[in-house]
Amino acid sequence: MEANLDDQTGEALGYVMQLLLDAGALDVYFTPIQMKKNRPATKLSVLIQPAAREQFVQLLLQHTSTIGVRYQTWQRTIMQRHFEQVMTTYGSVQIKVVTYGEIVKRTPEYADCARLAQQQQVPLMTVYQAALQQVK
Amino acid sequence: MEANLDDQTGEALGYVMQLLLDAGALDVYFTPIQMKKNRPATKLSVLIQPAAREQFVQLLLQHTSTIGVRYQTWQRTIMQRHFEQVMTTYGSVQIKVVTYGEIVKRTPEYADCARLAQQQQVPLMTVYQAALQQVK
Amino acid sequence: MEANLDDQTGEALGYVMQLLLDAGALDVYFTPIQMKKNRPATKLSVLIQPAAREQFVQLLLQHTSTIGVRYQTWQRTIMQRHFEQVMTTYGSVQIKVVTYGEIVKRTPEYADCARLAQQQQVPLMTVYQAALQQVK
Amino acid sequence: MEANLDDQTGEALGYVMQLLLDAGALDVYFTPIQMKKNRPATKLSVLIQPAAREQFVQLLLQHTSTIGVRYQTWQRTIMQRHFEQVMTTYGSVQIKVVTYGEIVKRTPEYADCARLAQQQQVPLMTVYQAALQQVK
Amino acid sequence: MEANLDDQTGEALGYVMQLLLDAGALDVYFTPIQMKKNRPATKLSVLIQPAAREQFVQLLLQHTSTIGVRYQTWQRTIMQRHFEQVMTTYGSVQIKVVTYGEIVKRTPEYADCARLAQQQQVPLMTVYQAALQQVK
Amino acid sequence: MEANLDDQTGEALGYVMQLLLDAGALDVYFTPIQMKKNRPATKLSVLIQPAAREQFVQLLLQHTSTIGVRYQTWQRTIMQRHFEQVMTTYGSVQIKVVTYGEIVKRTPEYADCARLAQQQQVPLMTVYQAALQQVK
Repeated sequence: MEANLDDQTGEALGYVMQLLLDAGALDVYFTPIQMKKNRPATKLSVLIQPAAREQFVQLLLQHTSTIGVRYQTWQRTIMQRHFEQVMTTYGSVQIKVVTYGEIVKRTPEYADCARLAQQQQVPLMTVYQAALQQVK
Repeated sequence: MEANLDDQTGEALGYVMQLLLDAGALDVYFTPIQMKKNRPATKLSVLIQPAAREQFVQLLLQHTSTIGVRYQTWQRTIMQRHFEQVMTTYGSVQIKVVTYGEIVKRTPEYADCARLAQQQQVPLMTVYQAALQQVK
Repeated sequence: MEANLDDQTGEALGYVMQLLLDAGALDVYFTPIQMKKNRPATKLSVLIQPAAREQFVQLLLQHTSTIGVRYQTWQRTIMQRHFEQVMTTYGSVQIKVVTYGEIVKRTPEYADCARLAQQQQVPLMTVYQAALQQVK
Repeated sequence: MEANLDDQTGEALGYVMQLLLDAGALDVYFTPIQMKKNRPATKLSVLIQPAAREQFVQLLLQHTSTIGVRYQTWQRTIMQRHFEQVMTTYGSVQIKVVTYGEIVKRTPEYADCARLAQQQQVPLMTVYQAALQQVK
Repeated sequence: MEANLDDQTGEALGYVMQLLLDAGALDVYFTPIQMKKNRPATKLSVLIQPAAREQFVQLLLQHTSTIGVRYQTWQRTIMQRHFEQVMTTYGSVQIKVVTYGEIVKRTPEYADCARLAQQQQVPLMTVYQAALQQVK
Repeated sequence: MEANLDDQTGEALGYVMQLLLDAGALDVYFTPIQMKKNRPATKLSVLIQPAAREQFVQLLLQHTSTIGVRYQTWQRTIMQRHFEQVMTTYGSVQIKVVTYGEIVKRTPEYADCARLAQQQQVPLMTVYQAALQQVK
């Protein structure tokens, strides 16, 4: 689901991003675009389940300045995901394990690393690397 | 309808935007992209009615450097629109009223505000705010 | 001279670009930026002569939503420029000749090519290439 | 103060933006850039008082992946600012009044409007427009 | 085929672009986007033949940090293409001739011009213009 | 050193980036900008030592379409750097160690990881993580 916005401020768009995420959008992102009459503008993209479409059409029309919304169905392939726990000098960190057939990827959870980095006053990368070193 | 352009100048792209709008495109916009071999490039997007597709394929192939055009059908939900008139210290301004079910949005027409701002040598925002204050 | 704008619409920014060019700015351009609180925003850059600074500070503060403007002096090296005339099947086109020491560059004037392309209903590139072929 | 970052994730950059704002930066923003070897990258810009420079050099070197930071002094012209209060159907909103010589701009405070919009379950624009209508 | 990436560095993305092109993608490009939590990010787009979809899903899931890939079928109109040879002072250059109905476009091959420019130590534009002047 | 380019193709800009890097520029990067007359454009930025300025002015004027170049001196704080070697299952990888006062950062060299990843047909991230796990 997309809308091009050249008559809404960045302030208001930041507000809308949070509102759409709170309403259950799978993902929300902005792309800088350039519209007619020398207008720098923003394309708002919202990924949602098809069943939620009418709800999000309403939200976009109500909370943005657009007069129209366009949408389309995409197919998706999503990896399976589960979590493991590792212990670092800075505390416990969840490792996100995602799999698809024989492909396996393990990455430390951002939110955990960020929380520990703030608590212990160390750089985020230090915690991230420490967690990664515990991954087998 | 989209084309990625890495072999056309910005000057020529500005020309093409106007040409496509004059030919009746619903909307034309540019997105900055990055292509292979370190090339900064521009994605040209054109929104048109399905029936106009072959006409715009021709225009794009003729007036841009692309050797191919890709396209796809999107659904759209568009609000109903009509205009009201308000009077400000700077002159008369049209208010665009857009509705969809119970949603109603009223915004001063940009073109009217811009014209009055130039005539009266005041900032655009001054006229815009004056018009907005007359909206009930 | 620069200002970051997250509380002004693209519509209004397009208006300001024209206003600043009309006021004699050497160049005006927009850069898409990303500000705090998830706000997509626009950096407005204006190149002017140092003597015009206070005039443009006033224009920016008056016509944009910013509460501050920052500026700095840059050195520039500019090529000498003069024009030559060539004749094409589509009409007469000015060639911009720019020189700096032994460096010489010749390019057809965009405005001439654009005007002829419109008059003769041919692509801009056709006129541009025809003009380029007449350059010695 | 600026650094080009092509070896840090967006996740980590979002973390750094907040960290720099919490440390007292006047402004922090990102610009999308394109670096060598086909790398999409991000330029991190931080506006600070000259006296805080060494503190922020340390923060950037510690919390980002960069191996160097570049900086420069800009002049700024900042408008005087004070606040007025207006009452709307949705509650009380502060109006930011900024002045520079004869230039005066009044805009409803974003934070107040956002808070009321959330409390009353109405669009941000509705509160914003209501506040604007109370401005004399 | 698209994926939004906020947890992979620009360095790694430059590597992936090359890998996807080597694997036979028709085109690969990056678009700067802005995701939640103040994250500057990159949308990776890959154009492929429908039959190659599962192969590229595997490549994207294996070589990028994404946990999901989305895709969709686009129609394309592609011009016919053949090559002609012209001789310039700097050497022989291929001219790409593309046609679609009555539309014909001739442009000097970038790779040939680049190679000659490097060999002869002249600007790319000089070779490009010389080649263009030989085009009938 | 900067130049705004709206009359050069992305193809030609990719060529110029390599040429400037080969000539010894410390860094070269592109920023997408938007210029007058609806032109999507590219700002070319080149970081060089002050002593190389006239050489690079010449290169830019000769190899790009610009008629002028602007420049300015920035201060820089650069971390000390040396390399350590670690052994992984995939082969030997250099670790870049950068220091500034008490700040120390260790990161696997991208070029080494990329080379091994290609040789062993494994994802770049796999090699990168393996190298990181050997860092003390």
